[in-house]
Amino acid sequence: MTTHIQTVAVLGTGVLGSQIAYQTAYSGFEVTAYDISDELLEKARSGFAGLAARYEREVEGASGGPAHAALSRITYSSALADAVRDADLVIESAPERLALKRDLYAKVGPLAREKAIFVTNSSTLLPSQLADATGRPDRFLALHFANEIWVHNTAEVMGHPGTDPAAYDAVVDFARRIGMVPIELRKEQPGYVVNSIQVPYLQAAQALVVNGVADAETVDTAWRTATGAPHGPFQSLDVIGLATVYNIDAAGDEESQANARYLKEHYIDKGKLGRSTGEGFYKYGTAPTRS
Amino acid sequence: MTTHIQTVAVLGTGVLGSQIAYQTAYSGFEVTAYDISDELLEKARSGFAGLAARYEREVEGASGGPAHAALSRITYSSALADAVRDADLVIESAPERLALKRDLYAKVGPLAREKAIFVTNSSTLLPSQLADATGRPDRFLALHFANEIWVHNTAEVMGHPGTDPAAYDAVVDFARRIGMVPIELRKEQPGYVVNSIQVPYLQAAQALVVNGVADAETVDTAWRTATGAPHGPFQSLDVIGLATVYNIDAAGDEESQANARYLKEHYIDKGKLGRSTGEGFYKYGTAPTRS
Repeated sequence: MTTHIQTVAVLGTGVLGSQIAYQTAYSGFEVTAYDISDELLEKARSGFAGLAARYEREVEGASGGPAHAALSRITYSSALADAVRDADLVIESAPERLALKRDLYAKVGPLAREKAIFVTNSSTLLPSQLADATGRPDRFLALHFANEIWVHNTAEVMGHPGTDPAAYDAVVDFARRIGMVPIELRKEQPGYVVNSIQVPYLQAAQALVVNGVADAETVDTAWRTATGAPHGPFQSLDVIGLATVYNIDAAGDEESQANARYLKEHYIDKGKLGRSTGEGFYKYGTAPTRS
Repeated sequence: MTTHIQTVAVLGTGVLGSQIAYQTAYSGFEVTAYDISDELLEKARSGFAGLAARYEREVEGASGGPAHAALSRITYSSALADAVRDADLVIESAPERLALKRDLYAKVGPLAREKAIFVTNSSTLLPSQLADATGRPDRFLALHFANEIWVHNTAEVMGHPGTDPAAYDAVVDFARRIGMVPIELRKEQPGYVVNSIQVPYLQAAQALVVNGVADAETVDTAWRTATGAPHGPFQSLDVIGLATVYNIDAAGDEESQANARYLKEHYIDKGKLGRSTGEGFYKYGTAPTRS
């Protein structure tokens, strides 16, 4: 029997967790935002207000009420038992560390409803690395969001071999109801769909600059002209942030590691981390616009 | 001293050669189209008429005269000496075989003006593999166009170590004058800029389908939604043509070769070669529209 998801708890109020909670509330759901301290929840509260303001500017139909009304559907809690007690769906967006997530699931498992579905927003861990800690492996899978969820509205849905298809389908349905485009994966895949393609694409682009074949602007112009895409790879790298890119590069093959060294020397060591710092491969004005 | 290019010869009237010659004539240049037989030139003539019709439909300002007038600026010749005698620029778009191209350059070298610049449109050979055969290595480089030149108007400019910067600049200037976006490479690079990025991007996308992670349509939806690009990778593969993709895959690493085998079994052996045959990863109507 498919769970029809009505109440949602989001564990973790970092950048992505906040966006997920807000988008869910904006879509009409009652949401409990959980974090480990009242200080973090205070910070989250002002973060949500900031999101409401951005939605008013950037999302059609959000101004004049809806963006503000979403705030009233968010409840705050630093008590895990309270946060998850009534949830049909628990969305985990905790820091990207395996042991931390496993500990969290071990705690949440006994506190949540038996029928509740758990999903992880992890970018780098596979559901099968977490499933047994949840106490409900059949109702556990990944639901992976992208930054600036209201623009980049993919929701990649990925189970592990033990995920119940009914739970999978319920999550796909939920993703759609919060305005996402569900991307259904049929197997576990590190990087899901988007990063599996984007990482080699970005590596290849970086190699052209690192090897002195062409400058970043030329590569971007070539890509935009050839494909009609709105952004070239170096514009994307600046948005992702060069510190994050550095970490991905450094974990890759020999070519990727050469890219990492180049990034460190020419950008990171000079404080040029991309759009967020006003300079990366490109220079930005003091008020960076959205990508 | 920079050669100011005024007269152009295009050697080879295949798909790309014809598009290059027509676009050059459309941009106001006198062009001689050369091929090895009068039969091929007759075929080219009707090809040019077809291009004029497409420009009238697809290129703003082309109808009502300009597209048709371009045809009158094209001269046909199967005599190499006549074709290149007055050319400031010789654009070679001959079949992609090293020995054939080298033979052609050895013949053209003594027939062309001393100051004439030669460029190759080769997709896979490097200028340094051809330079010594031209008799003018300093005035030899690559000028690489994309299919459907009037839409995908990149012109990748790539010299070899012995290319004179003045010749390079003259070619960049020429590219601009025929409506291209010049992409300036500073080093020889197999695949230039666009294919250096596009090939790993397309390989990674294929691997997702080959490994059963997601279907082609899901991957395309994910990519378009995440990046705002107008097309996903499988739409591009269908346009490139799966026979061409197969050849690229088969020449690659182990993952690429697995992609090649999958393509052969599921598409090529079934006559599904992409857009041109009405079916590839997608089905198309009887009148394929342009990408």
